[in-house]
Amino acid sequence: MRDLSKNAGLVARARKVVPGAMWGHQDAAALPPGYPQYFSRAEGCHLWDVDGNRYTDFMCSWGPIILGHRHPTVEEAARRQAEKGDCLNGPGEVLVELAELFVQTIAHADWVQFKKNGNDATTAAVTIARAGTGRRKILVAAGSYHGSAPWCSPSVLGVTAEDRAHIIAFAYNDTESLARAAEQAKGDLAGIIVTAFKHDLGIDQEMPTPEFARLARAICDAEDAALILDDVRAGFRLHAAGSWELVGVRPDLSSWSKAISNGYALAALTGNDRFRQAASAVFSTGSFWTAAVAMAAGVATIRTLLEGDAVTHMARLGTKLRDGLEGLSQVYGLPIKQTGPVQMPAVMFADDPGRIKGFAFCAAAIAEGAYFHPTHNMFLSAAHTEQDIDHALEAAEHGFRAVQNLHALAAE
Amino acid sequence: MRDLSKNAGLVARARKVVPGAMWGHQDAAALPPGYPQYFSRAEGCHLWDVDGNRYTDFMCSWGPIILGHRHPTVEEAARRQAEKGDCLNGPGEVLVELAELFVQTIAHADWVQFKKNGNDATTAAVTIARAGTGRRKILVAAGSYHGSAPWCSPSVLGVTAEDRAHIIAFAYNDTESLARAAEQAKGDLAGIIVTAFKHDLGIDQEMPTPEFARLARAICDAEDAALILDDVRAGFRLHAAGSWELVGVRPDLSSWSKAISNGYALAALTGNDRFRQAASAVFSTGSFWTAAVAMAAGVATIRTLLEGDAVTHMARLGTKLRDGLEGLSQVYGLPIKQTGPVQMPAVMFADDPGRIKGFAFCAAAIAEGAYFHPTHNMFLSAAHTEQDIDHALEAAEHGFRAVQNLHALAAE
Repeated sequence: MRDLSKNAGLVARARKVVPGAMWGHQDAAALPPGYPQYFSRAEGCHLWDVDGNRYTDFMCSWGPIILGHRHPTVEEAARRQAEKGDCLNGPGEVLVELAELFVQTIAHADWVQFKKNGNDATTAAVTIARAGTGRRKILVAAGSYHGSAPWCSPSVLGVTAEDRAHIIAFAYNDTESLARAAEQAKGDLAGIIVTAFKHDLGIDQEMPTPEFARLARAICDAEDAALILDDVRAGFRLHAAGSWELVGVRPDLSSWSKAISNGYALAALTGNDRFRQAASAVFSTGSFWTAAVAMAAGVATIRTLLEGDAVTHMARLGTKLRDGLEGLSQVYGLPIKQTGPVQMPAVMFADDPGRIKGFAFCAAAIAEGAYFHPTHNMFLSAAHTEQDIDHALEAAEHGFRAVQNLHALAAE
Repeated sequence: MRDLSKNAGLVARARKVVPGAMWGHQDAAALPPGYPQYFSRAEGCHLWDVDGNRYTDFMCSWGPIILGHRHPTVEEAARRQAEKGDCLNGPGEVLVELAELFVQTIAHADWVQFKKNGNDATTAAVTIARAGTGRRKILVAAGSYHGSAPWCSPSVLGVTAEDRAHIIAFAYNDTESLARAAEQAKGDLAGIIVTAFKHDLGIDQEMPTPEFARLARAICDAEDAALILDDVRAGFRLHAAGSWELVGVRPDLSSWSKAISNGYALAALTGNDRFRQAASAVFSTGSFWTAAVAMAAGVATIRTLLEGDAVTHMARLGTKLRDGLEGLSQVYGLPIKQTGPVQMPAVMFADDPGRIKGFAFCAAAIAEGAYFHPTHNMFLSAAHTEQDIDHALEAAEHGFRAVQNLHALAAE
C-alpha cells in the first residue's frame, strides 16, 4: 500500500488557505481514490509524488511535457538564458529566433505573437477575428474547451448572458449544424473556432472529418471570416506543421500553448497576412509575455521535436498502448472505447455511465504506478519507451482485474 | 553616440514575423528615439541592450523586478525547484508554503489562488464577485488599467458592446461619481474594482483619498457586493500587507501579479471568507498555474521583501530622485509634475500637450544611460542605491538641457 500521508497533510493545510483546497483541472479531488495532489519531482516520463511514490506519466502535466520532464536540451537552453535575464523591459533576441522558427514550421503562419496562457491565445484570436472583419459572431462547437474565460468557460457561474451574446454553437463534425450556425450569423460572421480534434471531456473523441474541416474553411472564405484553429492542446502532437495539415485545411489564425516550450509558460497566436494588420492593431499584452527563458525553451523544444520526429515516436508507442489495452480488454471480456489519436488517447469503459468502472480501473492502475486519467484524453511524450508502455500495460491489467471484481461483487 | 545597430537589425527581422514588429505595452516604437527594443541581460537595477549599452533601470520590467534583476536568493530558490520539477500533474509542496505566506502577509486575505497574468486575477475577481453575489454590475474607474481582456482593455478594437454591458464607469477619487454609479447599479451590483492608486497612462497620478476608499467600502457593505482591489501594479511597493492598508480600507478580493515573484510569471487572487465558496465554485484554470518554479521564486521574493523592509528603501530612494528632479527643474526653470508614490514615480512636464518636452527629456536621458518613461509611472526596486539615483540625476540634467534647447530652438 502506497504511503500518501505527506500528500494528505498538504491537502489539509491547503484547505485552509486555498478555496476548496485546489482550483481547476488539476484538482485531484475529481480523480479516483489514491491520486496524489502534490508532486516533488519528475524526469523523462516519470514523476514522483511528495511521498516518494513513482509514476509512469500518461498526462504529461496535461499536455505541456512533450519531450519528457526536464529534457536536457531544453533545460540547458533555459538555464543559459536565465543566467543572462528573463523578464526585462523588452524581449531578448530569442523572440526573433522563436518567431522565425514558428513561421517556418507552421504551414499557415505568416506571423506570430507570444502570450502566457492558451486562453490568452484563443481570446486574442477571437478579438483579432472581430477586429479584422468588423463583425461580431463567433461559431464555437458545443462542449469544446477553449479556456476558462467568460466567453468560453465550461462553467457559467459568474458569467453573464452578454459574455456569450455573439457566440453561436454548432456540433463538431456535423456539417449541417455548422451550416445552420453560419446561416444564423450571416452578415455578422467574424470567425469559426475549432479544436484540432473533438477532445471534449468524458466522451468519445473524434478526429475532424475532411468534409467538416473543408466546410469550415469554405464558409470562412465565402464570408471573409477567420477560421481559427485551437491547437492549444494538440499542437505538435499530431503534425509538426499544425494539426489540420492532417485534413489538408489551413486556418487563418491558430492558438498554441501547452507543448510549445516543454512545460515553460508560453502561448502563441499564429496568423496569416489576411489578419496581420488587425493583429498589430488589437491591444493584447501581459507582464510576462516577452520573458526570454520560456522563449529559449520554446526554440529548444521545437528544434528537438523536429529533429527527432517526435510525432512518429509518440504514434508508435501510442499504438502499442492502444493494442495492448485492446488485447487486455478482450482477455478480460471488458469492452473499452479507445478514441482520439493514439498520441493523445482517451480510454473509457463501454456501458459505464457512473464512471464506476473507469474509476476502479484507474485507482488500481495508479496503485501500480501508472498515472492514467479516467475521463480526459491522455498524452504520450517523446520520452516514453517500450518498457514504459509494458509497465503501463501491467498496471492496466490490475485495472481490468479491479473492474472484474466489481462485476463479481455486483453478481453476489 | 550609442550603437543600436544590432537592435535595429532585430527589429527589422521581427517586422516580417511579428505584426507591427512588437505587441503591447513593451513596444519600443511608442517610446522616444534611442530606446532599444531588445535586451541581452540584467543585474540588480542595471540592464544591457543587445548592443551592449548599459542602463540604470527605472521601469523594472514594468513592475515585476522589485528586488533587482537576478536577485541571488530568488534565483537560488528557483534553480533548486527547477532541478526537481516545475510544470507537473499538480503543484509542488511550495504551493502550500506560498499560499500560507500570502494569507499571513496580506491583511484582508483568508485565501489565495494562483494564476499567470495580472489580467487572469482581475477577470477571476470579477467572475467571483458575480458568482458570490448573483448580480452582474461592476463599477470600474474610467481610464483605469485592469488588463487587455475585452471587458477592460484600453482599446475597443475587436471588443463588442456586450463585453462591457454590465460595466459602469465612475471617476477615480470622485465620491459623487462613485455614488451615482452605485445608484445606477442598484439591486444588481456585484462589485467595485479599483486600482491601488490612480496610475492611468499619461496623466497626473493620484493616491486614493480616504473618503473615496471608505465610500467604496461602504457601498459594498451596504449592497453586500465585492470591493476588488487591483494591486497588480502597485502590490508590495506601497505596503507589504496590501496597498489600501495606507487608507485603512480592506477589500474583499485583491488581484496580484507583477512583483510577487520578482519577474517569474505568477499572479494571485486573494480573498476573504465572504467569497471563499464562490471562489471554489468558479472554474478558472490554466496549463501553467500550478508550476512550482515561479512559486518558489514567490516565496523567496516575499520573504526577502519583508525581511529587508523594501518599501522603506524604495521610498527613501524615490524621495531622493523626486527631490533631485525638483531641484533640477527649478535650476533650469522648467516646471515638472511629479505625481504618484515616490516608489512608483510619474514625471511629466507641465504644459507639454504633445509630449515634445517629455520625449526630448527621455531621449537625452537614455543616451546617458538612464531608462526613464515619458508617460507611464516608473518603478524603483530594492536594488537601487544612492549612486544609481545620482547617475539618474546626472542623466536627467542632460534631459533638462535638451528641453532647454527645444525652447531655444522655438525662440529662434
